[in-house]
This record gives sequence, C-alpha cells and structure tokens, in this order.
Amino acid sequence: MTQSLFTDEYFMKQALKQAELAFDKDEVPVGAVIVHDNQIIARAHNLTETLNDPTAHAEMQAFTSATDFLGGKYLQKARLYVTLEPCIMCAGAAYWTQIGTIIFGTHDPKRGFQKVNSPIIHPKAMVKGGVMSDECEQILQIFFKQKR
Amino acid sequence: MTQSLFTDEYFMKQALKQAELAFDKDEVPVGAVIVHDNQIIARAHNLTETLNDPTAHAEMQAFTSATDFLGGKYLQKARLYVTLEPCIMCAGAAYWTQIGTIIFGTHDPKRGFQKVNSPIIHPKAMVKGGVMSDECEQILQIFFKQKR
Repeated sequence: MTQSLFTDEYFMKQALKQAELAFDKDEVPVGAVIVHDNQIIARAHNLTETLNDPTAHAEMQAFTSATDFLGGKYLQKARLYVTLEPCIMCAGAAYWTQIGTIIFGTHDPKRGFQKVNSPIIHPKAMVKGGVMSDECEQILQIFFKQKR
Repeated sequence: MTQSLFTDEYFMKQALKQAELAFDKDEVPVGAVIVHDNQIIARAHNLTETLNDPTAHAEMQAFTSATDFLGGKYLQKARLYVTLEPCIMCAGAAYWTQIGTIIFGTHDPKRGFQKVNSPIIHPKAMVKGGVMSDECEQILQIFFKQKR
C-alpha cells in the first residue's frame, strides 16, 4: 500500500470497533470489515444471539453486504479484516466469494479454519494472521470472563 | 421412523421440488428442506444469482429459516434434506446449528465437505448420502448441459 494511512492496523481498528458493538449487545465480540480500493464497503459484527441464527457471523454478513454493494458475486480484489480467525463456515464462504486477502487478528486454535488440513479458502487468496492480535483477543477474554 | 409416509424419499422429493424452483430461476438447481418432528419447518433453494450473494446456498437459507421458526439457535433434533452434498461452508454452518442428521442426494466429489479429511460437522451428527441420488444428479446435469 502506498498511502500510509491505509495500513492493516487502520482497518483492523475498524473491525475492532465492530467487535465493540457486538460486545455492547452481549454478543461474542467479533467484528469484520471488507475493504475494496482502500474503501470500507462492508462493516459487520457477530449477531448470532440477536438474530437467533448461528450462521450470523460477522464475516458472513460482511460478505453478503460487500457483494451486494459491488453488485457482483465475487470479491477477488477485496480484503477481509476480521478480529478472530474465521471458522470453517466463514472460510468456506470466503472460498465462494474468491476474496483476495484475509487478514485476521487473533488465532482461534479450536474453531479456526487453519486447523483443517485441507485447503478451504480459494487457492489464490492470501492470509495474514496476528494483526493487532492482543487487542482482538483481549475483548474476547473480557467478554468470556464476565460470562463465567 | 414408524410412519411409512415420512420416509427419506418423501422428504427428498420435497427438497427436489425446491431444486426445481431454482432451475426455473436459472439458478444451479439445489434444494433443501429441514424436518423437525416429521414436519417441514424450512424450505429453500439456491439463490446465489438472484441475490447476488455466493453464500445464498439452499442449506444456509434453510438453517436461518429453521432456527427462526424454532426460536432457538440449535437444530439437534432436526434433519436436513438436501439434493446435493453440502459444501464446506454449509457443513461448517451445520456444525454451528448442531443439526442432528444430514441426508443428501447426490455426492459432490469436487466441492462436497466429505473430501476434507478433518471432521467439519458436529461429532454427534449422522450423515447419509445417496438418497434419490439419480434424480438429484439428473436435474443438475440437465442444467449444466443447457448452459454449455
């Protein structure tokens, strides 16, 4: 990226803001944004409780919003920023969108797609984990601590 | 099942009717129903083109409808009937719903979840493939033949 404003950290902060919105709704705090031409074209946060829908992960909603915004089914030139490593469902969705880049915050060794030994996402997609990992993990830790 | 009416074939025929609706909309013809207490609580067909949304598979929509209908996030006692072996995204979604049984028509060696060597669906979920496989495959073959 040529413009220093549009760093991975900049966009991950926007995803974190979405996670905070989820937190305030008593949802597992995961947030996502999708970026195209350095413009955020979709923002979403986990709404599984609010919608009574276990598929309403931040990424799923962001994919639907982004394809709707672009008016096409594919997101090859877009980047997904999400605070938590996507699960298998969301990685499978990423495959169908052909999204070009997946950047996530904290790793999810239990439910993350990277635990699967087979390729799930599109072969051309690039993946980068660990961006603002501490901040992304902290909000989850606080959430689950207060639940206990 | 004690009642002979409610066979797997009976419900798969209902899923096939959904696939036919998709076919009529020029969508890849895949249909699904979700059954709870021998009652169909969700019917859906692939709408990826119509909605411009690559995540709008029949199963995803059926999961959302079924959890909405039951007013809960989980589908442990429900059965999914789908004409094509679910993809990785849909199998990942099935995991989150904890759906008890997955019954599919024709196998999808290329995109089906069973090609993945790791467990994707819920460990307690039962899977049965090949129900009315010929009919489920035929509608797809006709669809793709006319596309060429």
